[in-house]
Amino acid sequence: MSNNELSTNRIMARQNGIVQPLLTDLYQITMAYAYWKSGKVNDVAVFDLFFRTNPFQGEFTIFAGLEECLKFLQNFHYSDSDIEYLMHILPDNIEPEFFAYLKDLTCKDIKLSAIEEGSVVFPRVPLLRIEGPLIIAQLLETTLLTLVNFASLMATNAARYRMVAGKNVSLLEFGLRRAQGPDGGLSASKYAYVGGFDGTSNVLAGKMFNIPVKGTHAHSFVTSFSTLDDITSVVLRHADTHEQCNILELSLEWRRRISSIIDVSPEEASDGELAALMSYAIAFPTGFLALVDTYDVKRSGLLNFCAVALALNDCGYRAVGIRIDSGDLAYLSVLARSTFEQIAEEFKLPWFSKLTIVASNDINEETILSLNEQGHKIDCFGIGTHLVTCQRQPALGCVYKLVEINGQPRIKLSQDVGKVTIPGHKEAYRLFGADGHALIDLLQRSSEPAPIIGQKVLCRHPFQESKRAYVIPSKVEHLYKVYWSDGGVCISPKPLSQVRERVQSSLRTLRQDIKRNLNPTPYKVAVSDDLYNFIHDLWLQNAPIGELS
Amino acid sequence: MSNNELSTNRIMARQNGIVQPLLTDLYQITMAYAYWKSGKVNDVAVFDLFFRTNPFQGEFTIFAGLEECLKFLQNFHYSDSDIEYLMHILPDNIEPEFFAYLKDLTCKDIKLSAIEEGSVVFPRVPLLRIEGPLIIAQLLETTLLTLVNFASLMATNAARYRMVAGKNVSLLEFGLRRAQGPDGGLSASKYAYVGGFDGTSNVLAGKMFNIPVKGTHAHSFVTSFSTLDDITSVVLRHADTHEQCNILELSLEWRRRISSIIDVSPEEASDGELAALMSYAIAFPTGFLALVDTYDVKRSGLLNFCAVALALNDCGYRAVGIRIDSGDLAYLSVLARSTFEQIAEEFKLPWFSKLTIVASNDINEETILSLNEQGHKIDCFGIGTHLVTCQRQPALGCVYKLVEINGQPRIKLSQDVGKVTIPGHKEAYRLFGADGHALIDLLQRSSEPAPIIGQKVLCRHPFQESKRAYVIPSKVEHLYKVYWSDGGVCISPKPLSQVRERVQSSLRTLRQDIKRNLNPTPYKVAVSDDLYNFIHDLWLQNAPIGELS
Repeated sequence: MSNNELSTNRIMARQNGIVQPLLTDLYQITMAYAYWKSGKVNDVAVFDLFFRTNPFQGEFTIFAGLEECLKFLQNFHYSDSDIEYLMHILPDNIEPEFFAYLKDLTCKDIKLSAIEEGSVVFPRVPLLRIEGPLIIAQLLETTLLTLVNFASLMATNAARYRMVAGKNVSLLEFGLRRAQGPDGGLSASKYAYVGGFDGTSNVLAGKMFNIPVKGTHAHSFVTSFSTLDDITSVVLRHADTHEQCNILELSLEWRRRISSIIDVSPEEASDGELAALMSYAIAFPTGFLALVDTYDVKRSGLLNFCAVALALNDCGYRAVGIRIDSGDLAYLSVLARSTFEQIAEEFKLPWFSKLTIVASNDINEETILSLNEQGHKIDCFGIGTHLVTCQRQPALGCVYKLVEINGQPRIKLSQDVGKVTIPGHKEAYRLFGADGHALIDLLQRSSEPAPIIGQKVLCRHPFQESKRAYVIPSKVEHLYKVYWSDGGVCISPKPLSQVRERVQSSLRTLRQDIKRNLNPTPYKVAVSDDLYNFIHDLWLQNAPIGELS
Repeated sequence: MSNNELSTNRIMARQNGIVQPLLTDLYQITMAYAYWKSGKVNDVAVFDLFFRTNPFQGEFTIFAGLEECLKFLQNFHYSDSDIEYLMHILPDNIEPEFFAYLKDLTCKDIKLSAIEEGSVVFPRVPLLRIEGPLIIAQLLETTLLTLVNFASLMATNAARYRMVAGKNVSLLEFGLRRAQGPDGGLSASKYAYVGGFDGTSNVLAGKMFNIPVKGTHAHSFVTSFSTLDDITSVVLRHADTHEQCNILELSLEWRRRISSIIDVSPEEASDGELAALMSYAIAFPTGFLALVDTYDVKRSGLLNFCAVALALNDCGYRAVGIRIDSGDLAYLSVLARSTFEQIAEEFKLPWFSKLTIVASNDINEETILSLNEQGHKIDCFGIGTHLVTCQRQPALGCVYKLVEINGQPRIKLSQDVGKVTIPGHKEAYRLFGADGHALIDLLQRSSEPAPIIGQKVLCRHPFQESKRAYVIPSKVEHLYKVYWSDGGVCISPKPLSQVRERVQSSLRTLRQDIKRNLNPTPYKVAVSDDLYNFIHDLWLQNAPIGELS
């Protein structure tokens, strides 16, 4: 490596934005060879991709990542350098024909069925069903899991924030700097938007996904100004008359006038902060949203902000609002709102009482719930670390399980009943009640007829014999559509904005008690009587000899 | 979007592996414009990048991500489409000259000093010091943070696993499927290796970073075989004689013979599992490492594995070992080891007692500590979710603070003393005792002479007046080197393997009580007397009027 050149071993999970097929676990490749070597090239398999537990101690999950899975299938192909690398790391005695076989592999014989992206989904109900040649279907496992797991976790997390914040509060994702790597941050911005956020601070995410991008300035902007002398240009042209206004004179005059109203002495306020806010206002007269907690919200920031906002008003511009990044957010937001209201009344500027208050200090679901209880006047939350790293539970546990091979069902038994897989090629239906709420998700064998509206259907717990009930659906939704088959996309994935809408419309079909933050009611996932018997017959056939399990 | 084409709005944090400058918060751009507009184009700033608290309730952190930061500086440039996008999202009244200014921006006037990548580092001591034009230095903030935060967090996490596992156990990273997105997984594999892991299951990480790649097979491989009829080819050529061996006959014969030794009936063992293991052994006779917990480790997996391993031995091959992915890992590993030892003794095959035992079920630091206490016989841990998502603390809180502008120091005050920044352009030294252990990290003003070996130096707590002590260093390490200046790399970053060695050698300089898992002793970070007085004079000058804080 020369002194001036950096190494070229760069991190690239994606080449031209497409996830590469080597982004997988080695054992997928070694299994592929063992299958190939055992003459299983023509075996046909069915795999289910599903999770066992909802994240965040909740009772629902949002499914996301489907579009990226389809792109991955579309571009699945080992390059020459991939093959070369595999030849290098696998044992010498691998038959060379295997590499020729790998080189020609594509997803043309794969069929992928999925639930619509953006839907609420539940444990055990497969999100994806992959059918096709055993070797290829197996090779897709790790990459599909990595594409679905984080996307769904992130969309779910964002949807939960949206629920606790309510519809009338804006939510902005501010987490890039704390995200798990550059692409972790980009995925977080994308799927936070899908889950219900209104925008992001991440410019690249805005450019790539057409997500609204938001942001103003940091504390360092404020501390880079020490005194009023640090402001070089004080002139702003009036929005309508285009006359020159002196923002410095106006701001100082307003600061003096309002200091008595809000009971703070101008001597207490920082002149450096005032200089910074004036500079920002001159640069963004139509978008003046100022950080007010660099020194002291009450004794400096609010006074300086209001002074500059009123000066801007003299120049024909309306300020946007403030951001508070520390301290007691409930108290400070109430203080700020009442200050704005006082000024609105005193100077007959009704819009001043509606200025936006953004809060952004280490906020999580619990903080918002607590602020709601205390009563706050915040219009917008900027949320970082807790959102983008899903701090409360940083991984979703989707698994990818073989459920059928060459038409024969497969069951994975476990001493932990929760880990027993539901075997065979299945369909899933969501049954709705007369009030429009989803009642239950029902898994059936694919050979069974679909449930019919108005006709009772027996829904059983998959493992507990006594738990069963008849349900009469008012609406039946078949959950799977074929998105990929015969080497191509069958249904184009929807644009991000529509997936985002789907999240909200799908959540609306859930009863409130299933969605609530504290002790939510579990949503029921059942199997048909036929599937129940199928599972348990197969279980018996595979039961170990010699011990009770 | 046509029915067959997927959208092109792809996730790409990196173009050709290089992080793009738009991967930043919008407020960096809006601040840049406000600075530009206020005539601050020629202002010169110093920023420190540091963290305030060690992660994982520990008392040390590993610094990583430097190479990626240098690549980012080297390639920092807004493309035409970036500029076009910024024009689109910023207000209409932005002066067009600003975009021309942005278009020409590079890092040619930036100077980056850093601690060596792979070093142990501590709170408050800057990892990076960025000097140069205020606007450019500010624009680098978010991206540098996102590159350092996760890399350092991950390397630290991995180093902690290495410490609890000890030197004689192998550690493999198996987390790709649960990582935070594709690139989150790739970064995790890279920095887990840096932190002390021996390999990864992630093939792409292996290819890109030359990390050993490991893996065998999954449960689905085992369940894809039901009976002995599912094995089509049973022939393996002897390693030396090249005679044909019938693995099926040999394995069945061995299973019968050893069943009495290990007290399990062959009827209890799964024939499907035996078929799967034989197939795998035929494919990888030199690399036979088998998953043994698909049905029952004790009653099926171990017996089948030993039978196939002994059959392989008849063919001139030595098996590698087993992987256990569920159950009581301490008990099962002890059982497996004693089974291997019995067979080794019975059949005079001493190497059989040394077969590798890999464990891989939801393992974290505490699991390993608990297994150590119980006594286990595991040679290798495969670690996924907890490692790659840093579940215990999924974000490191590095910040980027302005400490000087145009030669004038800047201090960020806060009612929380822990958040007060240490102002000015500083140097950092690590002072070592006679026994080779690091005693203390000392921050000084850059104008001060470096501490001298054998001469006492007064080290003070930055904020508590009474906490101070004289230290007489036996060795003094100047922590910063200039890695980037005059538009180029000054010191090429070391290859990954050397960074990995640096982690271990740097950790060896720390006393054991600082590294221990439970209640570690904090390592001391001090300031010189000169810097202490400098901080507190500046603090006083900036103290708010009118209240005690």
